[in-house]
Amino acid sequence: MRRISLFGATGTIGDNALQLVDLHPERFTIEVMSAHQNVEKLVALARHYQPKCLVIGDAEAAAQVKQSLADFSGDILIGEAGLVEAAQRPCDVTVMAIVGFAGLKPALAAAQLGHILALANKECLVAAGPLLMRQASQHNTTVLPIDSEHNAIFQLLDGRRADGLEKMILTASGGPFREASRSDLENVTPSMAVAHPNWDMGAKISVDSATLMNKGLELIEAHYLFQVAPEKLDVLVHPQSVVHGLVSFSDGSVLAQKGSPDMRTPLAHCMAYPERINAGVAPLDLAAIGSLTFAKPDRDLFPCLALAEAAMRAGGVIPTLLNGANEEAVAAFLAGRIGFLQIADLVADVLAQFADNSQDVASLEAIFAADHWAREKARIWLEKAA
Amino acid sequence: MRRISLFGATGTIGDNALQLVDLHPERFTIEVMSAHQNVEKLVALARHYQPKCLVIGDAEAAAQVKQSLADFSGDILIGEAGLVEAAQRPCDVTVMAIVGFAGLKPALAAAQLGHILALANKECLVAAGPLLMRQASQHNTTVLPIDSEHNAIFQLLDGRRADGLEKMILTASGGPFREASRSDLENVTPSMAVAHPNWDMGAKISVDSATLMNKGLELIEAHYLFQVAPEKLDVLVHPQSVVHGLVSFSDGSVLAQKGSPDMRTPLAHCMAYPERINAGVAPLDLAAIGSLTFAKPDRDLFPCLALAEAAMRAGGVIPTLLNGANEEAVAAFLAGRIGFLQIADLVADVLAQFADNSQDVASLEAIFAADHWAREKARIWLEKAA
Repeated sequence: MRRISLFGATGTIGDNALQLVDLHPERFTIEVMSAHQNVEKLVALARHYQPKCLVIGDAEAAAQVKQSLADFSGDILIGEAGLVEAAQRPCDVTVMAIVGFAGLKPALAAAQLGHILALANKECLVAAGPLLMRQASQHNTTVLPIDSEHNAIFQLLDGRRADGLEKMILTASGGPFREASRSDLENVTPSMAVAHPNWDMGAKISVDSATLMNKGLELIEAHYLFQVAPEKLDVLVHPQSVVHGLVSFSDGSVLAQKGSPDMRTPLAHCMAYPERINAGVAPLDLAAIGSLTFAKPDRDLFPCLALAEAAMRAGGVIPTLLNGANEEAVAAFLAGRIGFLQIADLVADVLAQFADNSQDVASLEAIFAADHWAREKARIWLEKAA
Repeated sequence: MRRISLFGATGTIGDNALQLVDLHPERFTIEVMSAHQNVEKLVALARHYQPKCLVIGDAEAAAQVKQSLADFSGDILIGEAGLVEAAQRPCDVTVMAIVGFAGLKPALAAAQLGHILALANKECLVAAGPLLMRQASQHNTTVLPIDSEHNAIFQLLDGRRADGLEKMILTASGGPFREASRSDLENVTPSMAVAHPNWDMGAKISVDSATLMNKGLELIEAHYLFQVAPEKLDVLVHPQSVVHGLVSFSDGSVLAQKGSPDMRTPLAHCMAYPERINAGVAPLDLAAIGSLTFAKPDRDLFPCLALAEAAMRAGGVIPTLLNGANEEAVAAFLAGRIGFLQIADLVADVLAQFADNSQDVASLEAIFAADHWAREKARIWLEKAA
């Protein structure tokens, strides 16, 4: 019986993870469930899955949870401190699906358990990759990526010698504006950007996918997770989202991982690792799909990709700054404060203001300071733009 | 320094293997070279690569070799007995690229060396799979397939748990008549059948590729090589020959191996295994290729595939009979004695005459007897058809 601690239980990843628990009740039990603010859903999930510990965003929400679950005998924890405390509870697999920078502290806490840390939060690796990976390595924690692209690469490299590795390629659907012109992009609204053709995701990630910043963040993630040099990492546009990742070797062999665009596949891989379990996903029928297409990404039309690649090459705190500035820019875009193309403008301008990349990025304090700096500069940029 | 024994040195596989030796002179040396009858080429290769031992088809050819290589201090062996003797010489990698049933005895001899046996000869596995694999296993010999499709599958499974394996899929280019009608197929000539769109191969294999018997033989090969149940094996038509093989798992993950249709890639994998070396092959550029297509094979139009699948399910000596009957049928087709569609007719009729599949197939005698029986029935069929 594997004990699963599920952070971000009420989101899309949470839904998919719980479908796998439903499929394999003999295999999985829930230790922890966390939600940011969806009291109603957390209460319903807690009634059904009987976790030992719940975490909710604030005291008011916690009081509501307590009231609704009069019989609940486990702990009900609150906010960031609660998340960190819950992340330290022994379990076999932590599914870390908290969106954004908020997932960092609990992920770092979970990385000390010496178990499987299944990461859906890309900011953890982008902003604090070296720190997180060092923490995990010191405590014998296996970090498994839930993101389909990284999960693909992990599967391809698992149990394999890394010598002769030439390229590591992440595929990108190209987002909803793959065939757009620059003038089309000027008029993109939040609702257009959130409507992703292949994946059902949250608003923040959907916008990142539309700007290709998502793919850029994923490159940085891969850089830290697989400890591979920036020049070996590349992106290939693949609108069908069937091939998720590829690795190529010096002898000309290219290994690829494919699957339906369904989060249950990588989640099942992480939750049962190293075993394979039924994920409830229909087998991929390539004959029915018929054709898979590939193209180079357009870095002129989607400058966020090039910005992220430059940040990856620069290293240090630059990826943290990129991530912080981008989170602010996307929030401003979703709030209708700036246009779609200004997301890249804001990020580029904030990065251009940063002069000294010599700080130590091995501490949580340095990361938080860099994140804070970038967000502050982003807010100033937004005020000026208003 | 790896000692390579190269059986079938003057053929296409031999050419490609020697290109890799040329690329990595610090890594490879040639122990044995064999040729069926191409004296001139064998002599030229011997002068260049300085092997320790040569094998040629008959005494007359051997005399010519001896005369041309007055300074040659190694052994010059003759015919099947010579091949078997040469195959027993210690080396690090045997590349077995003799075409047809003739490769069986030397392959069985080489399987006792406890080294790497790189097999390009599919008849070895089709006709004597259980025997060869048992021999290899008893002597700690690693059998690596050179055939791109099986090499792909080997790479995908290597270092990986086999649990959760759902399907093992070999791709087929579909051959030159992929889009033909039955009436088109009635008029296929040997020269049309030998002109394969993607691969440069010998005549026998090209015809097998055009009938899809090649893919059927490859399924049987995979069945024995990977010890996978017939119902888990399938074929997918993929005209671009970029994806060579796929394995799918219960969680919905599909792993695939891709590469340019170039034998140097699987040869490099076998010859350097488990390391990866430069194969002199340009990196696969999926963006330039643009589109990969997939379709189900048409077993009505290409009955050889269904015949081979039925033989795989039947097991015992049936695959040996299928192979023997097919070799005779293809030879008769290439000689202009029968039409393209009669290849399948002949094979089906020979198999239909076989009643008792209860023999022991673990001995070389049983295999030779079955092969002999099938060829004899094929010859009777051909005489009747004339």
